[in-house]
Amino acid sequence: MNMDIEKSITSNRVWPHPEVVEDLAQLRRRAPLTHCITNIVVTNFTANVLLAAGASPAMVVTIEEVADFVGIAQALLINVGTITTTDAEIMLKAAATAQETNTPWVLDPVAVGALKFRTAIVGELLKYRPTVIRGNASEILALSGVTGGGKGVESTDSSVAALPAALELAERSGAVVALSGEVDYITDGKNIISIPGGHEIMTKVTGTGCTLGALIASFLPVTESALRAATAASVLFATAGERAFKEAKGTGSFAVAFLDQLSTIGVG
Amino acid sequence: MNMDIEKSITSNRVWPHPEVVEDLAQLRRRAPLTHCITNIVVTNFTANVLLAAGASPAMVVTIEEVADFVGIAQALLINVGTITTTDAEIMLKAAATAQETNTPWVLDPVAVGALKFRTAIVGELLKYRPTVIRGNASEILALSGVTGGGKGVESTDSSVAALPAALELAERSGAVVALSGEVDYITDGKNIISIPGGHEIMTKVTGTGCTLGALIASFLPVTESALRAATAASVLFATAGERAFKEAKGTGSFAVAFLDQLSTIGVG
Amino acid sequence: MNMDIEKSITSNRVWPHPEVVEDLAQLRRRAPLTHCITNIVVTNFTANVLLAAGASPAMVVTIEEVADFVGIAQALLINVGTITTTDAEIMLKAAATAQETNTPWVLDPVAVGALKFRTAIVGELLKYRPTVIRGNASEILALSGVTGGGKGVESTDSSVAALPAALELAERSGAVVALSGEVDYITDGKNIISIPGGHEIMTKVTGTGCTLGALIASFLPVTESALRAATAASVLFATAGERAFKEAKGTGSFAVAFLDQLSTIGVG
Repeated sequence: MNMDIEKSITSNRVWPHPEVVEDLAQLRRRAPLTHCITNIVVTNFTANVLLAAGASPAMVVTIEEVADFVGIAQALLINVGTITTTDAEIMLKAAATAQETNTPWVLDPVAVGALKFRTAIVGELLKYRPTVIRGNASEILALSGVTGGGKGVESTDSSVAALPAALELAERSGAVVALSGEVDYITDGKNIISIPGGHEIMTKVTGTGCTLGALIASFLPVTESALRAATAASVLFATAGERAFKEAKGTGSFAVAFLDQLSTIGVG
Repeated sequence: MNMDIEKSITSNRVWPHPEVVEDLAQLRRRAPLTHCITNIVVTNFTANVLLAAGASPAMVVTIEEVADFVGIAQALLINVGTITTTDAEIMLKAAATAQETNTPWVLDPVAVGALKFRTAIVGELLKYRPTVIRGNASEILALSGVTGGGKGVESTDSSVAALPAALELAERSGAVVALSGEVDYITDGKNIISIPGGHEIMTKVTGTGCTLGALIASFLPVTESALRAATAASVLFATAGERAFKEAKGTGSFAVAFLDQLSTIGVG
Repeated sequence: MNMDIEKSITSNRVWPHPEVVEDLAQLRRRAPLTHCITNIVVTNFTANVLLAAGASPAMVVTIEEVADFVGIAQALLINVGTITTTDAEIMLKAAATAQETNTPWVLDPVAVGALKFRTAIVGELLKYRPTVIRGNASEILALSGVTGGGKGVESTDSSVAALPAALELAERSGAVVALSGEVDYITDGKNIISIPGGHEIMTKVTGTGCTLGALIASFLPVTESALRAATAASVLFATAGERAFKEAKGTGSFAVAFLDQLSTIGVG
């Protein structure tokens, strides 16, 4: 990593950092209704992750209802993982409505750069100014104009290598960028917060990245900044992942323990 | 609660009530093929809940096949949770076919009243006379003409407060109404059966309501009345939920234990 | 079973057969990108099964991207379980592209024979020469022209009874046929490999058949023959199923333990 960038990392954030503790308490108190337009692989896990943490997930995915529901919801997630022709129209309408109604929203540009159709739609979505963009190194590199050779949704670049791209993307887009990897980095283009922890086994359970994007969305309406929302969600994921690994006998029991940890962290 | 209504509660039903034991035995013996047209969040969990209890779930969701499959299936569930333009057409065809072929069916009007499109479609679906309508207090209130301020799929009203609405809806529609909440109530407009039990943690696992609707559908062809089918499914859910909570370390292990309980209750 | 057929069973295959051990090592080393176009009930479980075993799953399901992604992926699965009008077009394009690009692919003809629309589409798909066809007895019988009275996705015929149909189908189509049942049989029309093991509880967890089809696809690019790929996946499933049953308290914990076993078998 470039030394200048390394120096600009404001802080490491781990549980129980007082801001994260406070933000989680707010999430549980207010249970923000989070509108998730996400991929067909992770719908169930996304809802269960949000419920475990304390938010209220809802999936509303038809063109007739999407604008109304963005208006009702406190936050929105758009994840293009399994985007279809119809989804594209719905996502664009949801993003436009979020901008109009000042509903904070997260864009998860799964596999952007690897496939033309979604790359074009993500380009359109960016015009509606997401509050947060969450992605792995390949995706953040692709969005910043430097293709990373994306192999589907798996990151093939280390997160630290994509940090300059994350900074550039944050500055240019005005979004907070949440860059996921062995270490997570959250940046608003000036500050960089690094979040160590988690466990490699998380890459062997589908949706640990996609559901992080959803949880960031849930935190947006209950925290004082998007930087703080993305940080809180990432710290919870890293901590729950680390603790769950200690209880797990394999990837199946890891996923179960991960939800258990999210639903009990800081309780009692 | 209105005193008159309170008096009209015929009975409390808990496991192992002999009728529920008998109906579960029938379900396991006959493994009714249950056609589920449900939302994208709970498809997997729905299939696993039905298999655990002893039914045979199947999802057939294309306009070319839906009528044929309603004819083959013993029961049908229609859950509008993530309804789309295409789904609406399929659901209407399925409901029409169910009426023509005397296939018993359950309507789960998720978030009805909160969003116009689904509210209109649910209105159309009601014309095909569902055998059972299952919903939370907000949804039952909305269907009975009294809006309950639905916040997505979460109930914001207590179930007992919606009991007059449930009675009215049952009388007017001819359907048995299964009203879910801290206590579940089942009514055919005359009798009211109350089902205590379950556990609050069930609201933190997605699909515990939606899958109850599916299991009620599975019981319809193997019990002597819709009242009894809805009661059997609700008692099983309440009992499995209560027992699973005792084994759970959080919401993840709760969901696993819930399926374990459904698959073993009354066995051996 | 016909005596001639019984004699032609080349061998029983169980873990740790050296070929299966070697093929699993290859799978984990190369993590083949496996394009899954599958049904809405099992998307999440499919991804988790493939990740647990060591492959890289990806679902790309829109007409604009499907051909590009078949070109990128090392293998393809097409499972028609919840086929829709739109899916049919996507599946045909994917299969055509797989044939053009020599991408090995698995066809899982769920409930073929029971419903006209999917039966016609499966007929079309067969023209693109799947590398492997995986199905239960009813489905293999239906494809070979002898209807087995399919009741949705559940097999109503024993697998051994469908062995002559499997041989005939393999010869005629040029595909390896993986016939699932109490005993699994894999045949290329000449050799027959039988795979005992597994456990009846696997029929009570949704997707144990569908995800086997996906795992066979993952093995295709890393093994020396389709016969060996189908065998390796089937042996892993049988072994993981048998072991998981010993740890399970019901169907919920079985599914969790099954993933645990897949992710740890032969490790350390």
